[in-house]
Amino acid sequence: MARRRETPGERSASGKVADARFFGRSGPFTGEALADVAGGEYLPPRDGGDVNRLYGGIGPLQAAQADEVSFLDNRRYAALLDGTQAGLIIVGPAFAKRVPAGSAAIVSSTPYLAWSRVARMFHPAPSARPGIHPSAVIGDGAVIDPSCEIGPFAVIGESAEIGAGTIIGPHAVIGDGVVVGSHCRLGAHVSVSHATLGDRVTLFPGARIGQDGFGFAVGPEGFETVPQLGRVVLEHDVEVGANSTIDRGSVQDTVIGAGSRLDNLVQIGHNTRLGRCCIVVSQAGISGSTELGDFVTVAAQAGLIGHIRIGSKARIGAQCGVMSDVEAGADVIGSPAMPFREFFRNVATLRKLSKRPGKDDETSGSGGE
Amino acid sequence: MARRRETPGERSASGKVADARFFGRSGPFTGEALADVAGGEYLPPRDGGDVNRLYGGIGPLQAAQADEVSFLDNRRYAALLDGTQAGLIIVGPAFAKRVPAGSAAIVSSTPYLAWSRVARMFHPAPSARPGIHPSAVIGDGAVIDPSCEIGPFAVIGESAEIGAGTIIGPHAVIGDGVVVGSHCRLGAHVSVSHATLGDRVTLFPGARIGQDGFGFAVGPEGFETVPQLGRVVLEHDVEVGANSTIDRGSVQDTVIGAGSRLDNLVQIGHNTRLGRCCIVVSQAGISGSTELGDFVTVAAQAGLIGHIRIGSKARIGAQCGVMSDVEAGADVIGSPAMPFREFFRNVATLRKLSKRPGKDDETSGSGGE
Amino acid sequence: MARRRETPGERSASGKVADARFFGRSGPFTGEALADVAGGEYLPPRDGGDVNRLYGGIGPLQAAQADEVSFLDNRRYAALLDGTQAGLIIVGPAFAKRVPAGSAAIVSSTPYLAWSRVARMFHPAPSARPGIHPSAVIGDGAVIDPSCEIGPFAVIGESAEIGAGTIIGPHAVIGDGVVVGSHCRLGAHVSVSHATLGDRVTLFPGARIGQDGFGFAVGPEGFETVPQLGRVVLEHDVEVGANSTIDRGSVQDTVIGAGSRLDNLVQIGHNTRLGRCCIVVSQAGISGSTELGDFVTVAAQAGLIGHIRIGSKARIGAQCGVMSDVEAGADVIGSPAMPFREFFRNVATLRKLSKRPGKDDETSGSGGE
Repeated sequence: MARRRETPGERSASGKVADARFFGRSGPFTGEALADVAGGEYLPPRDGGDVNRLYGGIGPLQAAQADEVSFLDNRRYAALLDGTQAGLIIVGPAFAKRVPAGSAAIVSSTPYLAWSRVARMFHPAPSARPGIHPSAVIGDGAVIDPSCEIGPFAVIGESAEIGAGTIIGPHAVIGDGVVVGSHCRLGAHVSVSHATLGDRVTLFPGARIGQDGFGFAVGPEGFETVPQLGRVVLEHDVEVGANSTIDRGSVQDTVIGAGSRLDNLVQIGHNTRLGRCCIVVSQAGISGSTELGDFVTVAAQAGLIGHIRIGSKARIGAQCGVMSDVEAGADVIGSPAMPFREFFRNVATLRKLSKRPGKDDETSGSGGE
Repeated sequence: MARRRETPGERSASGKVADARFFGRSGPFTGEALADVAGGEYLPPRDGGDVNRLYGGIGPLQAAQADEVSFLDNRRYAALLDGTQAGLIIVGPAFAKRVPAGSAAIVSSTPYLAWSRVARMFHPAPSARPGIHPSAVIGDGAVIDPSCEIGPFAVIGESAEIGAGTIIGPHAVIGDGVVVGSHCRLGAHVSVSHATLGDRVTLFPGARIGQDGFGFAVGPEGFETVPQLGRVVLEHDVEVGANSTIDRGSVQDTVIGAGSRLDNLVQIGHNTRLGRCCIVVSQAGISGSTELGDFVTVAAQAGLIGHIRIGSKARIGAQCGVMSDVEAGADVIGSPAMPFREFFRNVATLRKLSKRPGKDDETSGSGGE
Repeated sequence: MARRRETPGERSASGKVADARFFGRSGPFTGEALADVAGGEYLPPRDGGDVNRLYGGIGPLQAAQADEVSFLDNRRYAALLDGTQAGLIIVGPAFAKRVPAGSAAIVSSTPYLAWSRVARMFHPAPSARPGIHPSAVIGDGAVIDPSCEIGPFAVIGESAEIGAGTIIGPHAVIGDGVVVGSHCRLGAHVSVSHATLGDRVTLFPGARIGQDGFGFAVGPEGFETVPQLGRVVLEHDVEVGANSTIDRGSVQDTVIGAGSRLDNLVQIGHNTRLGRCCIVVSQAGISGSTELGDFVTVAAQAGLIGHIRIGSKARIGAQCGVMSDVEAGADVIGSPAMPFREFFRNVATLRKLSKRPGKDDETSGSGGE
């Protein structure tokens, strides 16, 4: 599942974190300053040490040095605490006492979140470098905030609006009339048409927003295209992964609710509506006119039929095929979708029924089949 | 399924259809003119009213006004007829009498098709604005009809040919020698090589046509690429969705038959052949050298192995895994594919066998397991 | 399966191989010269004939002429040998005697590989045409070998390095600091950032390399992005299909081992590591931090959960859902994954249990259910 995440223990020894070819670096910072950002409690080294020590970067427990910060988020890797040289370690309360005596600690009930914020301190996301590349093509009537960065070969359509601090990557194509909020990041080669984007929206390279939905009627000489007259609305803080596709609505709008995150190669059909903070993992697809509540998770390669409703906080498992409504809070998996428990019981039942007596297991044949 | 479609009843109250930021508008039109386009019968309001009334746009039943057109295509939403203010309503024959007395009607045996044509009247697809953007790069010997629209940063290869009225979107890359028919629409960021396209072909943004198929032989030092020496042939009226990929043939051509429509993120392997008017829904994949007849439907996320034949009018269900030939007219689903009825019987059987007596249902335990 | 391949017998009669609009042509060559390239043994025509005959191209058995080369790789099509006019035929040892008396032969224990090399002789891949298109944008400090071909509208970032003989296609965007080896081919519209590429790497159009992985932590006001501070490393001879996506690592690197080949629309999550010569077929997805050994095959539409290990030479079947480690050499399929034999036994068991006595088969009802 994409929601699990790496831990320092899984990192190979080779290579430094945050190769300077690619990542900027800020700092150094004191432990207290970092604890403040992290929202955790700073504990100085138990053996005393220099409370004003400065930390210059991050690293995995096995490789971090005395001037670097590391973290532990997974009980499985707790043994790495014993041997680490890291000068400052972010841990949950249960591990505070296992931090080496010579290391400072930041204790947080959400150590992964704390780590994320500390890492961001050292390696902030690049800000917009204001200016429009001379190769960009800007349509008549487009309104672009002077704080925006518009990359090479970007095309901004007529009457489009781009908010403050937004970065439009190289080769991005923004259609006529499109509205992009402030502090958005639109990657290379994205295309956006018939759409309005809120603030802090991120589109990764190759995302396709606003093209026609898949709509046609059967006419006497073949299919006839049904005009797709709705829009795409991406609310604040939405993220859309690389090469994902979101079709515009046919009559109503296609809406992705605030804070929702879509991974790569995701398909969203026309008129579909996602609530707030939904997660759609890579290669999943949601067919037209389906509605999701808030905080719904759709795991990788799952597929949802059109015209159904998924309740808030439901979780759709990987490769699940959902053909009907799912209740709020339900966990489903399988194709067709069923509750997690039922799915795994089915798997066990079928395995048992398929065993050939005396061949696949040690029990003498019961002839029960 | 992508083939079901929105109805006015599903539209939220907020927002107008066809936001003027994004969609042009024609009209107004009389009811008779619209009925003519729709291929339906015009019925004036039963209470008399002005037979010369002009209609200026479209809207859902709940929101349309007296000068707007709406439609009913789904029995489920018939109750909306009672309260609608729409001045003109497209309906099937069974509902003609339920149209409010003050509203005119267009009666059609194919109301969705009729609606589609009426909507297109009010909001015609933009035509080509003839001209080549000064930033476009045109190869030597390319033949571009003067009625074409060639967008910013388009690249047209040497000796390519582009037919009358075709729109080549911004950033499209058309390879050397490629032939594109007339009245095609190639979206932003498409790439086309080693291919010939018929007339009225539509490629949505990011579609990839004509790259090498996935072909290699095992050599003594690793894989060796097998030259891919065929082409892609897209016949008349083919549509290819956003970010879909169609590889060129290795020896024979990859062919998509006339009128076929591919949704987003679809994969078509080398040497594959689709007949006329096939439908391939999003994220489905068809492996190399497989052949489809005419009017085949492949639902979302289905996968077809290579080197098989699918008969005309067969329907492949969502997420289906097809490992062998499918007869004409057959309905299959599941992985591996089986007839629809068998699939759902299997699901029911397994559910029954997995039930724990007295726990999952009300029947007293029979010990039958 | 993408690993099966076309044979001449499957080619329709229409159209020549290697349309001159799209493919260059070398030659002619003698049979001995071709046998040398093919790594096979040249056998002159049994009826004598001209040993110095020159061959000018390739064709399928049914259509090839006396000055053309064809091949037979599949026992199924052996009958085509009898009627072929091909002047030179590549066959395995078992078919050497069935080659017509008037045709020469190249006998190889790996006829498909031999064919591949002969086809490449006649139709070599285009080499780089050295030069930087005047429309390309080259960043400060970028180091581009003078033998490179840089296409129209390419963007090369600051301090990027491009090795000898590499082709950068039109509209490709290469990020700051990216290292691309020699003799690579980067297709139209690719984007590459935070990455190092070895030699002879091929990226097909629209491939996305190096964007942020899908990583976030749950904060008090929604998801917070976790900085993705690793890279993508594509080793020598890697190929990545059209519109595939490879995210950069979060802490460690995402690594694709030497010689591995990814098909179209494949998703590779952050921190994932593939060994040497792995094959990932179209629309398959591998979640974050999963590790594959060498020579692993992942068939089309398969999905691998994150944080698992797949042993060398394992084969993951089409649409398989892999939730746990797979041993080296294992063949698995199904969702959840299981050994091939178990999967097909399950299918058979369920089919048997679901049969309705007297209706679906001829046996009289046994009431065994």
